[in-house]
Amino acid sequence: MLKVITMHQASEMIYDTFEPLCQYETVSLPESFGRVLAEDIIAKENIPPSDRSMVDGYAVRACDTFGASEAIPALLRLSGEIAMGEMPREPISEHCCVKIPTGGFLPAGADAAVMIEYTDLLPDGTVCVKKPAAPGSHLVLCGDDVRKGQRILKAGSVIGVGETGALAALGEYAVPVTKKIRVALFSTGDEITEINRADSEGQMRDVNRYALRALIEKYGGTVVDLGIIPDEEEKLREAVLKGIQSCDMVVFSGGTSAGTRDFGERVLEKNGRILWHGLAVKPGKPTLAAEVSGKPVLALPGHPMAACLIFMILGKTVMCALEDRKMSDKKVSAESSQSVSANDGRELILPVFLKGGKAVPVRSKSGLITKLSQADGYIIVSRNCEGLSEGEKVEVTLF
Amino acid sequence: MLKVITMHQASEMIYDTFEPLCQYETVSLPESFGRVLAEDIIAKENIPPSDRSMVDGYAVRACDTFGASEAIPALLRLSGEIAMGEMPREPISEHCCVKIPTGGFLPAGADAAVMIEYTDLLPDGTVCVKKPAAPGSHLVLCGDDVRKGQRILKAGSVIGVGETGALAALGEYAVPVTKKIRVALFSTGDEITEINRADSEGQMRDVNRYALRALIEKYGGTVVDLGIIPDEEEKLREAVLKGIQSCDMVVFSGGTSAGTRDFGERVLEKNGRILWHGLAVKPGKPTLAAEVSGKPVLALPGHPMAACLIFMILGKTVMCALEDRKMSDKKVSAESSQSVSANDGRELILPVFLKGGKAVPVRSKSGLITKLSQADGYIIVSRNCEGLSEGEKVEVTLF
Repeated sequence: MLKVITMHQASEMIYDTFEPLCQYETVSLPESFGRVLAEDIIAKENIPPSDRSMVDGYAVRACDTFGASEAIPALLRLSGEIAMGEMPREPISEHCCVKIPTGGFLPAGADAAVMIEYTDLLPDGTVCVKKPAAPGSHLVLCGDDVRKGQRILKAGSVIGVGETGALAALGEYAVPVTKKIRVALFSTGDEITEINRADSEGQMRDVNRYALRALIEKYGGTVVDLGIIPDEEEKLREAVLKGIQSCDMVVFSGGTSAGTRDFGERVLEKNGRILWHGLAVKPGKPTLAAEVSGKPVLALPGHPMAACLIFMILGKTVMCALEDRKMSDKKVSAESSQSVSANDGRELILPVFLKGGKAVPVRSKSGLITKLSQADGYIIVSRNCEGLSEGEKVEVTLF
Repeated sequence: MLKVITMHQASEMIYDTFEPLCQYETVSLPESFGRVLAEDIIAKENIPPSDRSMVDGYAVRACDTFGASEAIPALLRLSGEIAMGEMPREPISEHCCVKIPTGGFLPAGADAAVMIEYTDLLPDGTVCVKKPAAPGSHLVLCGDDVRKGQRILKAGSVIGVGETGALAALGEYAVPVTKKIRVALFSTGDEITEINRADSEGQMRDVNRYALRALIEKYGGTVVDLGIIPDEEEKLREAVLKGIQSCDMVVFSGGTSAGTRDFGERVLEKNGRILWHGLAVKPGKPTLAAEVSGKPVLALPGHPMAACLIFMILGKTVMCALEDRKMSDKKVSAESSQSVSANDGRELILPVFLKGGKAVPVRSKSGLITKLSQADGYIIVSRNCEGLSEGEKVEVTLF
């Protein structure tokens, strides 16, 4: 029997054991998409640097428009025009206005913009403003978006579309990021074959190496593929040590259940230190983790669904710990579409899809991998509860 | 004033105007991650090909274990062992059992597996089974995961982790995918500068080209960067035609408002056919779309938040139409954290973040781009309603 720990304990053990690698590099902004920011980004200036108009129209002194209406418009003298990208030199005079495009900078004295749709321009250069403007209306004020000295992005953030836009707005073309984590990956088991070989009787295609590779790349890692390792202690030892030498982390699947051919624990015990062997979770009980030469080794169950779900939770945790990255799991609330019984002292990881505010378990007795493509995320049913009732609020972690 | 159409009308116009490109290629499974599947994937065999055990233990005839208990175990004779990846030749005899690992194939006659934890093996080779097994228990049956002839994945699906696993399980190493869409991208405006130039007074950094590039790559496209185009009709015309010649689609931002320097509409009218100029949506009203030599041109507002939000909706629609891809927006339900007033005949695209089941609007008067990094998705407030009340159920489209 395995001595089991909870996923929470496993996660704490990961953070207690492994330090961030602190390996950084600088890449161009377009290359930084999807990478992990290595430093806080502090604004070096105000954005916008001065008040600007949000509409095409006229920059005005708001007080000159008070009381204006369709019937009795405010009459202002057009005293000039501001071009996009131009910083106006002249202040605006009383009862005057200046033509301004969307994004144009306001002249001194002006404190509002009026939309061209609510004005008429007469041939003599008089602008009729048919709606009063409150001070500040249709303006973006200096520093509205970003204040000088403000921290805009935190070290450890993953650079997405919004972050890319923020970095561009701040003029950060050279972006400090963490180096991609190199992950040595292999599958174990005499019964496992390459997927493009004709399936011989009884053999199983190596689903895990492809699915785990996709996950590792999704989480920003680089895979060093060590192939399929047969059930021989020496071969397993060689693969683990090769991975440790060339990579930041080793991941393999299979060979960890209490069955006949379990070399995983023995190899890791002899060459490093076991962190845990056995998780109080379903699926994923026979998960093993170790530290070899200071580097993490994660041995996942052979079952593809179990291997993927555990990697999504604990594999990602290891990668985040090594990269000093925020765990950025997106969670949403939903109602359980049906009652689910708890699992007898083990947490239950239940893949679900979302439909009309409900979390519907992806049913599959065997939990085989093709079902995973139907799921939007997973819920965790605690080990200390009776289970879920229909309609109970649950938190779905999205894939 | 612009003649405006709704986003729904715009989306229909896109599908009415542009046919799928139908350009395919074959890539290896690891390279197919994130790509769009070009053909339905039909299972050529049953998975598993025969019944297999889900536990380490013994394959039994269930009827031989009926009535077994801790006190009075069923006594079975151990008649052999099945190795992983081996297809058993001999059927199982009455009152016999065969040792079996997780994933091992059952011999003929066996119809259940018992977990090793509920058995004792006596020195004479008798196995004491202390719990009765129902027929089918702890088994994955032949075809449980995949039935021969079943459509497992649909053409047009994006290949994620689950799809990668399914393709591996089916032995599909060479994957038919659509060719990546090539998108010519540029920004327009005399006031726009490269982001890594020192910000001269009044100039604006080119946020859009970087944020839109990230979005296009996120949606599986390849960007051909045409840089920043000044406000000159001839230069804009050259850029559009260069994009049309070398790419599947042209996207640019700026130069589409009713301001002074609007060449976009003129250029597109002269060289192609305008689909619409003006959307009944906020932000994003001055969006323009055209067809030039049968290819789509999307001219987005200069405002970065507006440009990104419109691209997330309509730019993605164009890409999906060209690729014959399912629009795979992930939507979740939430409650509005506050009341929001409707926008006077225009749909409102409101970026929100999710917090404890609530959708909280990302507040920003100017809607500037750095705020986008705080949002998890957006909600759309219909043009035909009074707005949202606090606590009202909303549908959040996740980024």
